[in-house]
Amino acid sequence: MMKTNKRDRILLAHGGGGQLTYEFIRRQILPRFKNDTLAKLGDSAELNLDSKSVCFTTDSYVVKPLFFNGGDIGKLAVCGTVNDLAVAGSRPVALSLSLIIEEGFELELLEKILDSISRAAKENNVDIVAGDTKTVEAGAAEKIFINTAGVGVKLPGVDLGVEKIAAGDKIIISGTIGDHGLTIISQREDIKFQSKLRSDCAGLAGLTCKLLENVSGVKFMRDPTRGGLAAALNEISRASELSIEINEPDIPIRPIVQAAADMLGFDVLTIANEGKFIAIVSPQSAKKCLKICKNHPLGKDASIIGEVVETRDVPVVELITRIGGRRIVQMPYGRELPRIC
Amino acid sequence: MMKTNKRDRILLAHGGGGQLTYEFIRRQILPRFKNDTLAKLGDSAELNLDSKSVCFTTDSYVVKPLFFNGGDIGKLAVCGTVNDLAVAGSRPVALSLSLIIEEGFELELLEKILDSISRAAKENNVDIVAGDTKTVEAGAAEKIFINTAGVGVKLPGVDLGVEKIAAGDKIIISGTIGDHGLTIISQREDIKFQSKLRSDCAGLAGLTCKLLENVSGVKFMRDPTRGGLAAALNEISRASELSIEINEPDIPIRPIVQAAADMLGFDVLTIANEGKFIAIVSPQSAKKCLKICKNHPLGKDASIIGEVVETRDVPVVELITRIGGRRIVQMPYGRELPRIC
Repeated sequence: MMKTNKRDRILLAHGGGGQLTYEFIRRQILPRFKNDTLAKLGDSAELNLDSKSVCFTTDSYVVKPLFFNGGDIGKLAVCGTVNDLAVAGSRPVALSLSLIIEEGFELELLEKILDSISRAAKENNVDIVAGDTKTVEAGAAEKIFINTAGVGVKLPGVDLGVEKIAAGDKIIISGTIGDHGLTIISQREDIKFQSKLRSDCAGLAGLTCKLLENVSGVKFMRDPTRGGLAAALNEISRASELSIEINEPDIPIRPIVQAAADMLGFDVLTIANEGKFIAIVSPQSAKKCLKICKNHPLGKDASIIGEVVETRDVPVVELITRIGGRRIVQMPYGRELPRIC
Repeated sequence: MMKTNKRDRILLAHGGGGQLTYEFIRRQILPRFKNDTLAKLGDSAELNLDSKSVCFTTDSYVVKPLFFNGGDIGKLAVCGTVNDLAVAGSRPVALSLSLIIEEGFELELLEKILDSISRAAKENNVDIVAGDTKTVEAGAAEKIFINTAGVGVKLPGVDLGVEKIAAGDKIIISGTIGDHGLTIISQREDIKFQSKLRSDCAGLAGLTCKLLENVSGVKFMRDPTRGGLAAALNEISRASELSIEINEPDIPIRPIVQAAADMLGFDVLTIANEGKFIAIVSPQSAKKCLKICKNHPLGKDASIIGEVVETRDVPVVELITRIGGRRIVQMPYGRELPRIC
């Protein structure tokens, strides 16, 4: 790779499809994401999969700031899409990577992001096999937006679905909640203790595959990103037409996260996570699931936080508070936290 | 669908992952892209494919203006990704759709774009199976950017690759060149005869599948988008290490396109197309390929424009002009045409 000058910047021509795009791909993309499929630079990547049952997902990432404690937009773009494949019961295989870059964006920052993507892809055992780079004029986008799409192979014998959920099933969260969202917000707001907050941004496929390969009682999984635990549980409740009860003392929250949320006036239940999953599991398998989680570095704070119950009137999510009270956990409206991922 | 008020606009909360996102998906997305896979609204879409050999691709679309003669950003986002799958020798099956929308964007325009995506997906026999909606503050993006990724199933027995190309192979273009790029540019520049220019934006999989299923001599295909015919042929020449000769009189160009290019100072060979492919075919199969193209509405202006020749010194693309002269067709630098797709 040629050395980058601190003052090198992205030009519109980098996205023009001509010589400069060609050089950009050869200098910046290929050396970082070396694999036989990508190296062919075809219009599409050719994949030879283990199965005809595949999972397919996409997400765009517009997080602000681009770099934050515990991650950056690049790591997020890999882990977020890996996690969507993981919680669907698949083993992530390949990702696409599409960049929309503002003219004038510092090449040095782009290189940091690409390095981070490369590292995260390696850690998560996925290849970046297809890509696209578009440039827009200064002012037409803010720095950089990244889209990843992903393909995973369904794990044999695994078939998750909300329709499998029944009253009595236990709800497991794989670790502490609110870390990602509060890290982003506090870095944006520049609050005092921001350096102690750290995003949980991580790829979960290693843990979810282990869980699904070793326990048969997992019925459904979801990663509580935008909208947090509150949105994810409400979606599960609506889709399954069953109610959910969660116990406040069992929900793992770091004290610093709780303090930041209290200070900024947020409900941690509605805050985005980027390295956690919710699993709905049969009561018989709950302990085994918890044990597997706790033995994994990304699941060491896992907890059984509640259970699925019959719906009385309409399906609701209820929180049983520390003092034994009950409150409805509502679907967040969605106004609070733009550009969290 | 609820009736949209002319003054309804996209709010940041539409991308927040809460109630408003949920309603947006239920009102705007699901009714338009109805299919069983999408309806599950899982973190990933589950696909049961016909084969383990799949093609996977992605593109982001940042075209400006959003609406142009012959298409719009939505149609482009479907056709562009369909075409990348098509020229790789696959039958497109499923697309993902990811929107990055500027706060304040008119809901009415978004609905027009979503309708167009829905129509294009139906015409191209692909399902939109996965999606994502992100919103950014006013000024942080220009109106809307769209990413689509696509999955296609390799056609049985078809194996395209630059390494199969040999001297003597014929080069077919499926129709007139330059229509898309010059339409966009002339609408941006607001030139007089813009209304007579029309983008060729179209999905090519119907034609490419027909070709590949009926002729065995197709060796490689590419769609000459950004950088036009000049970039695509230069890429093929570099990758195959063979030279290419094309004959100026055989290259189909609409007179109005040539006139616009002359007026604006562009070389039509470098202008983007969005509904054309280049096929490199064995000399024996060239006539049959041409016939199949000409019998299809999207290939009626197809033409054999030249052939692959041995490299003398370095691989080059040469144009044999109308008067028998020769000039090197260079890889465009990439500076001319931002936001063409």
